Amino acid sequence: MSRWEPDARGRLERAALALYGERGFENTTVAGIAAAAGLTERTFFRYFTDKREVLFAGAAALQDLLVNAVVDAPRSAAPIDAIAAALEAAAAVFQERRDFSVQRQSVIAANTELQERELIKLATLASALADALRRRGVTDPTAGLAAEAGIAVFKIAFERWISAPDQPDLSQLTEDLFDQMGAVTSRS
Amino acid sequence: MSRWEPDARGRLERAALALYGERGFENTTVAGIAAAAGLTERTFFRYFTDKREVLFAGAAALQDLLVNAVVDAPRSAAPIDAIAAALEAAAAVFQERRDFSVQRQSVIAANTELQERELIKLATLASALADALRRRGVTDPTAGLAAEAGIAVFKIAFERWISAPDQPDLSQLTEDLFDQMGAVTSRS
Repeated sequence: MSRWEPDARGRLERAALALYGERGFENTTVAGIAAAAGLTERTFFRYFTDKREVLFAGAAALQDLLVNAVVDAPRSAAPIDAIAAALEAAAAVFQERRDFSVQRQSVIAANTELQERELIKLATLASALADALRRRGVTDPTAGLAAEAGIAVFKIAFERWISAPDQPDLSQLTEDLFDQMGAVTSRS
Repeated sequence: MSRWEPDARGRLERAALALYGERGFENTTVAGIAAAAGLTERTFFRYFTDKREVLFAGAAALQDLLVNAVVDAPRSAAPIDAIAAALEAAAAVFQERRDFSVQRQSVIAANTELQERELIKLATLASALADALRRRGVTDPTAGLAAEAGIAVFKIAFERWISAPDQPDLSQLTEDLFDQMGAVTSRS
């Protein structure tokens, strides 16, 4: 029996995040998440392969968004400007889901295995961004440097955004930090 | 019975690297490494906690070298110059052991779990470098940006050095890429 459940995915996601925060990621089961969402385990597995994937299901969409933004940047855009535009576009998506991002980050910070998975996600995004630049004709090492610098900026912007009590705008913060990265790395 | 074995550590390291390359990391046992080195398993465990540690035993010394170099940089050095000096000093150490680095990198590239461990090592080094800058009185976000940019530069320098057939000098490559990072991230 496969009934359609209104917003099943969102309900599972919210229930999972709440339980990870209360009990810890390790002590939460798929059965517990499904019960808290008022759904069956079977419904859970229609949306997620396991309890970890609730936290990483957005990675593929994020990568697509970033790659498309780099590929679609104006031909005249410098590599670092194409990367900055892509990450500011991603920032706007995170901004709309700040509560989810804050909860997710505190779950990840409490679990070594999840931190490892997050680092892999960031390294994968850096590779994808470098490849997107190469498709624009950008050569190495510029492509790699611009992509790695972009992920470094975003990582720091994200940490500041998550922990800042006054909730600044993530796109603006990212933009400001790109400028500061340029100033910080300029050699005398 | 605990006899002193001449260069036991080096023999175990070379035997492990050779076996990881031939059989794969997964298919190599501590017993096999010890036998290939002409030593006992007991001797192996006097130097390494497990077979993975043969590949990561140098991480603590590398971190100490980097942190000390940042802390000891001239007071007048800009944050990015202190980071560059530290990574160029580390590069000189890698340069002396190029064969080991090349072998180690090919083992890591073939194993997902080792790649994850390597990413964690790099993230840990970036944090340590940022902390070292803060001890010099450098504020955030500059400390974080300079440290992350430095690790990004080193990662790319290292990849190029490992795969370059003409074996350039890693310190020089790192220095050049720091300059290029400054140029690449400068915003118009």
